[in-house]
Amino acid sequence: MGGPEIDRLIGLLARLPGFGPRSARRAALRLLQQPETRMLPLANALAEAARAVRPCAACGNLDSQDPCTICADPHRDHGLICVVEGVGDLWALERAHVHRGRYHVLGGTLSALAGTGPDDLNVEPLLARVREGEVAEVILALGATVEGATTMHWLTERLKPLGVVVSRVSQGVPMGGALDVLDDGTLAAALRSRRPF
Amino acid sequence: MGGPEIDRLIGLLARLPGFGPRSARRAALRLLQQPETRMLPLANALAEAARAVRPCAACGNLDSQDPCTICADPHRDHGLICVVEGVGDLWALERAHVHRGRYHVLGGTLSALAGTGPDDLNVEPLLARVREGEVAEVILALGATVEGATTMHWLTERLKPLGVVVSRVSQGVPMGGALDVLDDGTLAAALRSRRPF
Repeated sequence: MGGPEIDRLIGLLARLPGFGPRSARRAALRLLQQPETRMLPLANALAEAARAVRPCAACGNLDSQDPCTICADPHRDHGLICVVEGVGDLWALERAHVHRGRYHVLGGTLSALAGTGPDDLNVEPLLARVREGEVAEVILALGATVEGATTMHWLTERLKPLGVVVSRVSQGVPMGGALDVLDDGTLAAALRSRRPF
Repeated sequence: MGGPEIDRLIGLLARLPGFGPRSARRAALRLLQQPETRMLPLANALAEAARAVRPCAACGNLDSQDPCTICADPHRDHGLICVVEGVGDLWALERAHVHRGRYHVLGGTLSALAGTGPDDLNVEPLLARVREGEVAEVILALGATVEGATTMHWLTERLKPLGVVVSRVSQGVPMGGALDVLDDGTLAAALRSRRPF
């Protein structure tokens, strides 16, 4: 339409999650109309992040410092590790300010379908961290899916022998959720895990 | 979360049309996980497009060559100009392969509310192109809004004295559209502009 540069830009934008060809064209147009104030800053931010951001050698979090900001924070409880599937889950927990310990990013879940086995996950470094002796509790915060549950069971078997407390996030009615829209599995879990008032 | 580079990237992505903070985080994460194959190519494409793409001096289209690919194409009918509000409209018409002439991008419509007056639109260059004498017909292809209709009337008054045919795109039932979901204005226009079989 307007030369190979525009076509290439639209093609790359269309591959972003949540974007398709239509929204990519719209975004490209908006950017092209403000090359100095919108487009170059985004180009620089992308290049700078690609250069600076690396996985934390300790926990697998993405950060521009290594060890990451969380691992390096002396105010974080070093006796408490929360295991998550991906960095997006870590970000969600951080936004909620609900975890005062550190994290460990698994990088996936066990899945026969996706061909993800134990060796594809960031497990050995987790066991090594626990073996160091400072960790008192490992919280498993994987998703309530078949793969998540399988992975949590499998991790528990490996962590328990190391003499550490292993817990998992509870399942139940989400905050603000009405019961009549919940699926059977969630309702069953909410009843099963009921607590006395 | 992971240093200023990530925060800055998410902030800029969140300003893209169709993106909010949530989708920006998701896109940033996807990009961060593939810095070499996804992130740097996008950074380069943005920088390259910002460098190369300019508005065409003749018609206002965005292109990496000037005059733009369409204006420079000798197979395009130079006697036919299609006036559109923005480059996005030009792209839509080009994708549909429905216009064999050239374009003129107005850059907006007259709008008292938005404070857009005649001087804010790319009008004088259009009149100059018509005065050159090669143009036989100007097709007004602005949206069927109050501002679009006002602007088309206003343009017609300026173009007619130059001895050129002025036409506007028709209004009616969109392709594949059922009548019972259309608004009253569209139905009225469709009836008013009815054509004999």
